Amino acid sequence: MNKAVILLSGGMDSATTLAVAKSEKYECFALSFRYAQSNSSELTCAKKIAASIKVKKHLIFDLDLSQIGGSAMTDNIEIPKNRTDIDNVKTEIPVTYVPARNIIFLSLALSWAETLNTQHIFIGVNVQDYSGYPDCRDEFIKAFEKTANIGTKAGISGSEFHIHTPLINLSKAEIIKKGIQLGVDFRDTLSCYDPSPDGKACGKCDSCLLRKKGFREAGIKDPTLYKE
Amino acid sequence: MNKAVILLSGGMDSATTLAVAKSEKYECFALSFRYAQSNSSELTCAKKIAASIKVKKHLIFDLDLSQIGGSAMTDNIEIPKNRTDIDNVKTEIPVTYVPARNIIFLSLALSWAETLNTQHIFIGVNVQDYSGYPDCRDEFIKAFEKTANIGTKAGISGSEFHIHTPLINLSKAEIIKKGIQLGVDFRDTLSCYDPSPDGKACGKCDSCLLRKKGFREAGIKDPTLYKE
Repeated sequence: MNKAVILLSGGMDSATTLAVAKSEKYECFALSFRYAQSNSSELTCAKKIAASIKVKKHLIFDLDLSQIGGSAMTDNIEIPKNRTDIDNVKTEIPVTYVPARNIIFLSLALSWAETLNTQHIFIGVNVQDYSGYPDCRDEFIKAFEKTANIGTKAGISGSEFHIHTPLINLSKAEIIKKGIQLGVDFRDTLSCYDPSPDGKACGKCDSCLLRKKGFREAGIKDPTLYKE
Repeated sequence: MNKAVILLSGGMDSATTLAVAKSEKYECFALSFRYAQSNSSELTCAKKIAASIKVKKHLIFDLDLSQIGGSAMTDNIEIPKNRTDIDNVKTEIPVTYVPARNIIFLSLALSWAETLNTQHIFIGVNVQDYSGYPDCRDEFIKAFEKTANIGTKAGISGSEFHIHTPLINLSKAEIIKKGIQLGVDFRDTLSCYDPSPDGKACGKCDSCLLRKKGFREAGIKDPTLYKE
């Protein structure tokens, strides 16, 4: 049985990605980060998902990115609400962008993968709804893969790292359909950038708006608990 | 005045690298990691060096890599001593290799650089004495640079990140001469993989052997405090 490290934020994309890895018969090692995110309730979700999908191990790695700062996700920058131009998220970089976040997360996933002696890493990046984030594009993933293969003992010893991105070209609606098909309980996922302390979604931030739109387009009832 | 982020371990290479950045008139932001390294006295050295070279800021980032494990530097794996074939360090990967360490460190340096709005990162990698480490080679640095330029907001907005590696082709003896010329006090640096609790070098690990050899070849008296 091949092992795989799966980045698991607790959102719907990473939950679906984990379900894909499981369905492809990988022994799953889920990796989450306690990175001083304002929405730490997503870690509660990550734990529920890891348990329900039965991972071999779930590592919550302490990584306080507020030591560096520079984003609405870790600093006190206001998160945009109720945008009427939600489709334009596709072309601009939101204030919720965390500098080099996916490079950092993938580096740690790579380190764990090398330690576990596996070459398989899964990440739920997706260009359709988030092309505003430079580190969600296939071009970036390919460049990182190359760096990993040049810069690690395993890589230069002939093991080729593969960063799996099963959702990269799917729309939110398609991700939702795939997740449902693989048994993901989306009530256990949180996408909101600004949830209430008890983990309810705001329903107004970019991520909530995209999620609502996804369920609407998929023709599936949205099970998310919203504040109001 | 251009800003630069400089990776500063507290060893002689990173101290010299910082001195180079300073001599090139960068405003220096030094970045060290508290990564559960067995030789944490190198952080004491990093602080002394940062102070003597007068950096603008010295950030010691908490990053407990023992959460992942997999190296003699963070786990209880025995560190090799008194090798008679020290020159062969050039062709093999030592047990002190930390999986993907430089990728992780550079990712965090990149995140800080992006936050500081600068494109300059310095790292004291060096192929002469450490070609055994895959993540010390120029090919790796170039691949990382490309990943950074594709995967960050700054990178895709036209700012090109540059990873400076002023020591990459120097021998240990040449690094020592350059450091002395730039005023580095090597007594404040620690290269040892297994120092005593009060920060004295063992004199026997690969790193100590290479350091001793460097001073010998440079014809400079080694100021290092050894245990015996």
